[in-house]
Order: sequence, then structure tokens, then C-alpha cells
Amino acid sequence: MAKDHQHAFSPEMRRGLYEAIFRRRDMREFLPDPIPDDVLARVLIAAHHAASVGFTQPWDFIMVRDLLRRREVKRVFDEERLKNANQFEGARREKFLALKLEGILDAPLNLIVTCEPERFGPGVLGKVSLRDVEIYSTCLAVENLWLAARAEGLGVGWVSIMRNEDLTRIFEIPPGVLPLAYLCIGYVPNFPERPVLESAQWAKRLPPGSLLHFDSWGDRSGAGSKLAAAMESAATWHEIFPEDIPKDISNGRRF
Amino acid sequence: MAKDHQHAFSPEMRRGLYEAIFRRRDMREFLPDPIPDDVLARVLIAAHHAASVGFTQPWDFIMVRDLLRRREVKRVFDEERLKNANQFEGARREKFLALKLEGILDAPLNLIVTCEPERFGPGVLGKVSLRDVEIYSTCLAVENLWLAARAEGLGVGWVSIMRNEDLTRIFEIPPGVLPLAYLCIGYVPNFPERPVLESAQWAKRLPPGSLLHFDSWGDRSGAGSKLAAAMESAATWHEIFPEDIPKDISNGRRF
Repeated sequence: MAKDHQHAFSPEMRRGLYEAIFRRRDMREFLPDPIPDDVLARVLIAAHHAASVGFTQPWDFIMVRDLLRRREVKRVFDEERLKNANQFEGARREKFLALKLEGILDAPLNLIVTCEPERFGPGVLGKVSLRDVEIYSTCLAVENLWLAARAEGLGVGWVSIMRNEDLTRIFEIPPGVLPLAYLCIGYVPNFPERPVLESAQWAKRLPPGSLLHFDSWGDRSGAGSKLAAAMESAATWHEIFPEDIPKDISNGRRF
Repeated sequence: MAKDHQHAFSPEMRRGLYEAIFRRRDMREFLPDPIPDDVLARVLIAAHHAASVGFTQPWDFIMVRDLLRRREVKRVFDEERLKNANQFEGARREKFLALKLEGILDAPLNLIVTCEPERFGPGVLGKVSLRDVEIYSTCLAVENLWLAARAEGLGVGWVSIMRNEDLTRIFEIPPGVLPLAYLCIGYVPNFPERPVLESAQWAKRLPPGSLLHFDSWGDRSGAGSKLAAAMESAATWHEIFPEDIPKDISNGRRF
């Protein structure tokens, strides 16, 4: 069924991509080892080669090593974390408070990915009625960065418990530039087999078949299809991971 | 300098990821060949394993094959494209109009990635003051999908010349669900060496060093650093691509 198409990667190359996708984690524990410049250069260029609407490349990268600024970021994080905790009650609040959610001071590098929507003026090829297309592009760059870091052995943690106005103030970011992602980056003791929030039983991985709709929202008529079956089948994955299907794929699925 | 860290991938695996990142393209030309279910299953599961704020997994996937609906999408696209053209003047407008910007009817599959921010209610771990974190998560899923498709030999084109209210109407998407990405997917005649908008001289790749700031916005004091040099150096890449550095990396850089 799966005849190899001429532009498909070799099995080894394809596996490299899937290893990055399925063994990437949102990290909060870091080693102090510095990141070599050539490694960091590759991670940043991978980000820079994401798709962008109208080839606008709306991203910038602020490399943050300064400890004073990082302490101020941590202070803001701690305030916001308590607000976040108050969205939950009882045991769930306790579970929230027990989780480590950032590595701002532990990681050897913090990195802010910003988005400047009007870098080349308001006229953008591909932008008419949709407002946030440059933001979408910048997120694609973040994912490239995250995957490249994983392949280089680096962990990345995205700290979203944050206020944009504080980042703007602390890092002197001008109006019109959004501090989209505050990331902690560094080598890590290990990459957990499963997402931390899954292991901590905060939330479960949704069954992939439940996310499929066919031709219109809520039409599940294809749910019994070969596609849905393939999404639940170990055979789909054994071809790529013959000896060990990563736990993050097999978990919660009917293998 | 680049001592291998214990969690770094082997050179072959790492190259697989970088091949996907640097040979991914935003495609508008498609072959009619159907996509095998096991291939599509892998691409969708790769998307599903993106990071998401609070492990909310806010995405759904609408698989669109119905031609009537796709013709209606194409009609809306054509209207919006003319509006987009009117943002430009003279030769730039002509250049815009000469570009093929979608493969809605040519691709064997259209796929809408949606975002449902309040899937599990308003309380989300990691969401306090930032409004759009679920949207960011969904974009990460789109990039996973795009890269996995590339490794499988499939092209993806993101059609952003669109109106959300039309997608909502055509595909009966309920309130509270955002049709974030309208994608065309299929096998392709070939993947161009460079982004189409770059080859068409619509825009240039920005020099990567120009995107770096150090500790605060506009501080370029690290611009002469080893990091900036590594971003402009062929040596950084020869280790991964010994025989041929992809054109998309080497283009516009001082190799």
C-alpha cells in the first residue's frame, strides 16, 4: 500500500525527524553546561527557515544570559503562577503547586522569540482578512527551534505563565514587537519518556481518532475508515521504529 | 568544541530532521495521486504530538475531499486574492497576480487544522495573562504536520488568503472553534530548492545574524561574537551536510 514516493526520505532520515517529534519534551530541569556556539547557531537557523506569510520572516531572537533580568522575569513568573493556581481548587490546586514549571535561573540560556508583524509595512502577500498570520509564522519557527534543539541534545521549556508588558519592560522591546515565546534552553539530565503533565496525571493524551472530522465539523462517518484504523495501529509505526515504538506514541493507544 | 552530548542524536538521525526543516516548502503544485492511509496517519499523529499549553491538545483535523465545498473555498479565495492584490501597485501588483498561491482543487486532500481554546473549560495550566496560548500550540502542531509530510514525500501549502467566517460557514464549524490553518496536501512534481517567493524575487531571506539581540532589544554587542560568526559559517553546516549544503541554507549567506 505504501509505495515509496520519489521525494520521500530514506527510512533512516525519516526516522530522525520522527525521533525529534516524539522525543521532544517541554523541559524544566537543566544542566549548567554551556551551549556551544555552533550548536546554537544551527538551532537558530532552523528557526529562521520556517515558513512565513509572504516570506516576511517576522521573528527576532533575544539571547538572555543576564542574571539580573532573569531574576526579574522569575519574580513576575512567581506572581503569575499564584494567579494561575487560583484557577484550580483542592487537590488539583495542590497538584498544580507541586509542579515545577520553569527553569529560568537554572538554564544556561533564556531565549525570547519575538514577532514584528509590520516589519515591511502593512501590505503582506497572503494577508487579507486574517489578523494573526505573522504570529502563526513565528510559532512555526519556535517548533523548528524546539525540534532542532532536541536533535542536538538540548532541552527547551516554554514559559507561558508570563505578562507581555513585563517582558516588554524588562527587555526594552519596542511597540509593535510582541514577545511571543519565552524559552529556557540547555542540556538536560534526561528527556522523560512521556510529557510531564501526562505522567503527573494532570491530563490525558486524547485518542487521535477522536480528533478527525470528514468534510464538515462533527461528521464522523470516516471514523471507521482505514485512516482511523491506521492511526490506532502499531503496524503504522513498526515500519519506522522496528525495535521500540516511543512511549509517547504507544501510550493511551490500542497497541 | 562541539563535544557530543549524551542525548544528542546520531549524525544520521540529526540530518533527517534538518533535511525536513531545510527542504520543506510551501507548495502550490500537486499530483493527483492519493495519499495512503498509513502515511496520512503518521502525519496526523506527528501533529497531535506537538506541545500544548497545559496539555490541552486544542486541535482538530477536518479532512476535506468533497469537491463542492472546495469549489466554494476557491471562490472565496479568488475574491480575497483580488483584495490582497490591491495592497500592491504597478509591477509589484503584476508580480503578485502572476504567482500561483493555492492548490485547493488540484491537491487530493485539503485539511483544516482548528483550535478550540476552551476545550476543557477556561482554567488552563500555563494560561494566565497571555490570551492566545492555545493558538500558539496549534501552530506547533501545524509545523509538525508540515515536516512529517515532507519526510513522507508530501507537499503542504498553507492558504492564508481566506476569511474565517467563510470557513466556519462552509464546514459548519461551531462557535468557539477557530479554523486556524487551511492546508492543501499531496504528492508533488518536485520540491523547489528555494522558497518560491524568494526565487520570484518577491522578498529576500534576512541575514540570520541581523535577527540576534543580546540581553535586551537592539543590543547588538554580541554581533561580532562566535555565535554570529557560526551562523554565517559554512563549517557549522558541513558537519551535517558534508556533500551538499541545501540551497536554502547557503543562499544569501557568506559561504
